Amino acid sequence: MSPTIGVFDSGFGGLTVLRALIERFPHARFVFLGDTARLPYGSKSRRTIARYAAQSARFLVHEQGAEFLVIACNTASALALDAIEEAVPAVPVLGVIEPGAAAARQASRSGDVLVLATEATVQSHAYAAACRAHGLRALEKACPLLVPLVEEGWTDHPVTAEVIRIYWEELRAEAAAQGMNPDALVLGCTHYPLLRPLIEGAVRPGIKVIDSAQSAAGAAVQLFNGRAGRPILSESAPAEPDRGGDAANSPLQTEIRCFATDSVEKFERLGSRFLERPVGTVELVDLGE
Amino acid sequence: MSPTIGVFDSGFGGLTVLRALIERFPHARFVFLGDTARLPYGSKSRRTIARYAAQSARFLVHEQGAEFLVIACNTASALALDAIEEAVPAVPVLGVIEPGAAAARQASRSGDVLVLATEATVQSHAYAAACRAHGLRALEKACPLLVPLVEEGWTDHPVTAEVIRIYWEELRAEAAAQGMNPDALVLGCTHYPLLRPLIEGAVRPGIKVIDSAQSAAGAAVQLFNGRAGRPILSESAPAEPDRGGDAANSPLQTEIRCFATDSVEKFERLGSRFLERPVGTVELVDLGE
Repeated sequence: MSPTIGVFDSGFGGLTVLRALIERFPHARFVFLGDTARLPYGSKSRRTIARYAAQSARFLVHEQGAEFLVIACNTASALALDAIEEAVPAVPVLGVIEPGAAAARQASRSGDVLVLATEATVQSHAYAAACRAHGLRALEKACPLLVPLVEEGWTDHPVTAEVIRIYWEELRAEAAAQGMNPDALVLGCTHYPLLRPLIEGAVRPGIKVIDSAQSAAGAAVQLFNGRAGRPILSESAPAEPDRGGDAANSPLQTEIRCFATDSVEKFERLGSRFLERPVGTVELVDLGE
Repeated sequence: MSPTIGVFDSGFGGLTVLRALIERFPHARFVFLGDTARLPYGSKSRRTIARYAAQSARFLVHEQGAEFLVIACNTASALALDAIEEAVPAVPVLGVIEPGAAAARQASRSGDVLVLATEATVQSHAYAAACRAHGLRALEKACPLLVPLVEEGWTDHPVTAEVIRIYWEELRAEAAAQGMNPDALVLGCTHYPLLRPLIEGAVRPGIKVIDSAQSAAGAAVQLFNGRAGRPILSESAPAEPDRGGDAANSPLQTEIRCFATDSVEKFERLGSRFLERPVGTVELVDLGE
């Protein structure tokens, strides 16, 4: 029997993490939950986020049979990982922040890394803390226009390229002012993988761009296979891990169910851009207050 | 004694409505509540929005002594005006949508008007319905990038000018395809008055730009003076109603208290751009679930 992997996000941006997981686990069953009724998590208190995330984790594990959980939400990864582990103690749980920091550690020689993220993630300084634990110095930059530009569908648009150029110039200048010599850039938001070509075009050569969705999928292979009592998870490293590889073009062999707590229309309309395949019908679920 | 006017929004964009009200009622007391913990209202159900808005109205009336209410939130104006009137039956309540439509009726000769708004407001078609009730044909355009551009502070930025140009071209082409001859454009979002100079620069001459914050303030003068048992509300039409007039430059003679349910930092940091004067300390209030 295929294993069931639960993927949780406050919205549908985490579908980029689901996409990366499908490449690594093409024979798994996936259950994705977007808590769209209660987003954004970024402006809410730690207590509230922990409560929402624990409810969501219990739904994926107890009602949908998830045997593994990936928290594809930067805010919940930063603030609620403990609460989720408490809520579903029998299930291995992985967030997106620690794998991103670990990948930056692998990529960086100078020890100075840059992070692009939403305002809420930057204010939590979760990436800076995770990078510090790996002996890295991190400079974080909030890029509040990038999520709406992706959601507008302007992922290959001159306006978006110009916005990225402006953000990059500000970040580069700030890093120089702090005497940093960065050689890695972490995409610390689940929407940003859709902007990877434009971002790679804007940053100077010699800076390695790290997609934390891909990093999380790689970490999932290690954690889940290590924790599984049976050799059920096939490790299938895609030929082109950052662009979807074969998985996006091959016939769908992966079973995916998507749930949302509200806003199913936007999820269905935009989701396929993130997943790089049709999301199909998104089922509405009520988690209560 | 000065009258107390309560102003309610899901966020702090409604401070543009408060600014317009201060110009008209410089001697009033104002109590502003932004339900920032529970925004955005746009993605929530009518029942949930009605409950939140009714709670907020009761706070302003019963705990802060508001004798008049202005609902400076397009979503709540569209979906919860009845619920608010039921929650505080003794208090005159005014939304922003009907005054915007009435101003469009005044401004338009052709009977064809355009509306720029958020995606949620457009999906509710509240402006189209209000315009139809005035015998107008309205075409609505969702502009999801404009709120984040305003909140980034790029209100006079080439990127914002380009985004507005693109939205305007799309709207103009759609109006032409429908055989419309529009001569008025309603700014149907409380953030958009900050973009008025750029928007007026983008639209062709002969199209009158209508700021629904100013329209609501004008309607408030009529409604509140008509409903007040005493002649307490001075009608002070500003010399330049759309640009802040004297009120913004004169010493503050108006008493303003601002409350928010969360995210006080962002409110305090950005609010003064909307209010065109310091917002001071924003008090945190807990309205419960």
